[in-house]
Amino acid sequence: MPPQSSPSRLVLKFGGTSMADPERIAASAAIAAHEARSGRQVAVVVSAMAGETDRLLSAAQALGGGLGEMETDTALAAGEQASAALMALALKRDDLRAEAVMGWSLPIEVEGPPGAGRITAIAGERLDAMLEAGVIPVVAGYQGLNASGRLATLGRGGTDLTAVAVAAAIGAECDIYTDVDGVFTTDPRIDPDAVRVERISHDAMLEMAAMGAKVLQTRSVEYAKAKSVTLRVKSSFVPPGASAGTEVVADAALAERRVVSGVSYVRDQARVSIHGGADAAPAEAFFAGLAAADVAVDMIVQARSRAGGAVVECSVAGKDLPRALTVAEDLPGPDLAVRSETGLAKVSIVGTGLRGRADVARTLYQVLAAQGVTVRMVATSEIKISALVDGDLLEHAVRALHGAYRLGR
Amino acid sequence: MPPQSSPSRLVLKFGGTSMADPERIAASAAIAAHEARSGRQVAVVVSAMAGETDRLLSAAQALGGGLGEMETDTALAAGEQASAALMALALKRDDLRAEAVMGWSLPIEVEGPPGAGRITAIAGERLDAMLEAGVIPVVAGYQGLNASGRLATLGRGGTDLTAVAVAAAIGAECDIYTDVDGVFTTDPRIDPDAVRVERISHDAMLEMAAMGAKVLQTRSVEYAKAKSVTLRVKSSFVPPGASAGTEVVADAALAERRVVSGVSYVRDQARVSIHGGADAAPAEAFFAGLAAADVAVDMIVQARSRAGGAVVECSVAGKDLPRALTVAEDLPGPDLAVRSETGLAKVSIVGTGLRGRADVARTLYQVLAAQGVTVRMVATSEIKISALVDGDLLEHAVRALHGAYRLGR
Repeated sequence: MPPQSSPSRLVLKFGGTSMADPERIAASAAIAAHEARSGRQVAVVVSAMAGETDRLLSAAQALGGGLGEMETDTALAAGEQASAALMALALKRDDLRAEAVMGWSLPIEVEGPPGAGRITAIAGERLDAMLEAGVIPVVAGYQGLNASGRLATLGRGGTDLTAVAVAAAIGAECDIYTDVDGVFTTDPRIDPDAVRVERISHDAMLEMAAMGAKVLQTRSVEYAKAKSVTLRVKSSFVPPGASAGTEVVADAALAERRVVSGVSYVRDQARVSIHGGADAAPAEAFFAGLAAADVAVDMIVQARSRAGGAVVECSVAGKDLPRALTVAEDLPGPDLAVRSETGLAKVSIVGTGLRGRADVARTLYQVLAAQGVTVRMVATSEIKISALVDGDLLEHAVRALHGAYRLGR
Repeated sequence: MPPQSSPSRLVLKFGGTSMADPERIAASAAIAAHEARSGRQVAVVVSAMAGETDRLLSAAQALGGGLGEMETDTALAAGEQASAALMALALKRDDLRAEAVMGWSLPIEVEGPPGAGRITAIAGERLDAMLEAGVIPVVAGYQGLNASGRLATLGRGGTDLTAVAVAAAIGAECDIYTDVDGVFTTDPRIDPDAVRVERISHDAMLEMAAMGAKVLQTRSVEYAKAKSVTLRVKSSFVPPGASAGTEVVADAALAERRVVSGVSYVRDQARVSIHGGADAAPAEAFFAGLAAADVAVDMIVQARSRAGGAVVECSVAGKDLPRALTVAEDLPGPDLAVRSETGLAKVSIVGTGLRGRADVARTLYQVLAAQGVTVRMVATSEIKISALVDGDLLEHAVRALHGAYRLGR
């Protein structure tokens, strides 16, 4: 008699929009029930009901508590506790056995500052026992227990991280359910020709995550990559089994190594440039100042101007421009000229196949130039090339690139 | 050098209306801060924000979860978790040290069915350590940890019970803050002459608790009596230190043993009577049937009619009358006559001094008769005499008795 193989395991994560109200919770429960009835051992990880975290946070803030405070963590964690219990009730009504499981009760061990914890360990034995007994554990996302025995949260999007970590702990695949049916080649609101990406590498997913449609939290993708967890992004807004989704897989598993996976974008960007009259580049002081002012710098260009002086340019979010300019204007140096431009946007082409392909960068320039879109700044990573362009021309640029790389249907 | 006496300890409990929103939480925190700054060691126990428990319960019910289900307990317990954290934030903003403490983390050990737990133990050592270190523990009310390591709630009003149990565990007095300034001789909305009762016995408090102004949960009064916890009912809707309140004390501690403490009432009562033609009283079958139908019986009278048959009469809540009648009409027996009357109300005079005072009952009859109020049924306990009267005459009866016993100002 051949050894009986154990049933495969699946973690389903439902985000806030999939848990918005009892009706949506019931629809999400039906999806989990469908998977459980198809013979898989199923665990569920849930976010707070949509709007709940914001409601609790604004109450905490009204009383002087910000993110990064242990009491705020305790208040926020209540949201996922309630939704885990509600999901377990919905599964029970579907005649399944289910039990709400808290981060403190497993426990999910968490380290780091309040509001920005990282998971250091998950005791998987109790989950194993529940799964083997046919009970669906419904784990409250976003939270765990710190070394002082107190509740600690993982920061925004932390429920994705909980789901991936639970999947790693019990040897499961992980389906992240949200309100979009996977990752698209670009935003369908901008280009109706956009199509769903069937499979994408962890790295390309990370780059796409910066796009408007934020379907996966960055740390969860990194965690999945490190622990080799197969990750899928699916929609809970279609009937059980109907969402094809996007599968995030290891680089090597991608049989079809398409050069470009998609076109992503970020609106409301600004550009700051500092022209140093003398030879001494003010870059180091500038970036140290920006870090101290909590301004995230995206693209960076450093060069020599024709006149021989140093030039350093960077892009920042539009809302951060005033703080960035304050930093720039406080820089020491006799002949520094600070310039800035606002109303910009960033468009990026993303794909594992970009590595070492200089022609992709050339095509980007050509396509944008042919469309009359001036490129203000360019930055490249291993699997992404980004261009800073006039914000008014962003959608035009997205459609042009999406078409040029033949990403649509 | 005489031994230094340790500072006295005080538990402050804030109910839902005292925790309704950040402004009310801040006002309640100011009361706790006032007590802490006056040199006492202070712990706080909180309810969920007003409306929160109902909101969570209706979501649970929409998914098939009722009270008495473990997952519902987990959902409901989230309300007190959030409010404990918010109260701790408010105290910190007032420059006090505070920490939210959960029922599972102390732990507060709970036994019994979900939604109706009873506290079996509270580990007071951690609370002791926090108090000695100058930290205000803010305990989430209404919940604890059961033997399976899961959250379990204590039922409606369970936060009062948590407060008294915490007070007993740390040797503290217990102030229950609500939206009324203590217990009144009767409902001030009915008789404007009603005055605050300064001190009341546990037993009389229990009887008064049945009154419209439900200021204290019954089990918490019983627990306080059993553990000799001094209990006060105060208002959080006046400035810190301004609420005189009502003190609930042991019988023996009542120097002034006033005969009657107050006049209480319950609206919407009904009466059912069963006249047995033969000698066999149908009482036992009737009350067994009512218990099976979950109908709470209040007053009971059993007698023989002039014709020689048995008569059994009882009062029930008006909403329960249809179920009570169904039970009555299903009773076996050849010559049973079932009668009922609705639109009644119960008026009671309550006081420790009533014990063995037949004249009090006589006065009750006399006063009501003089006012033209017919008494339908009378029931007496050690410290209460209740009369069932026409609902339309209730307020008239309350004022007459309140005046006759000279309870007002």
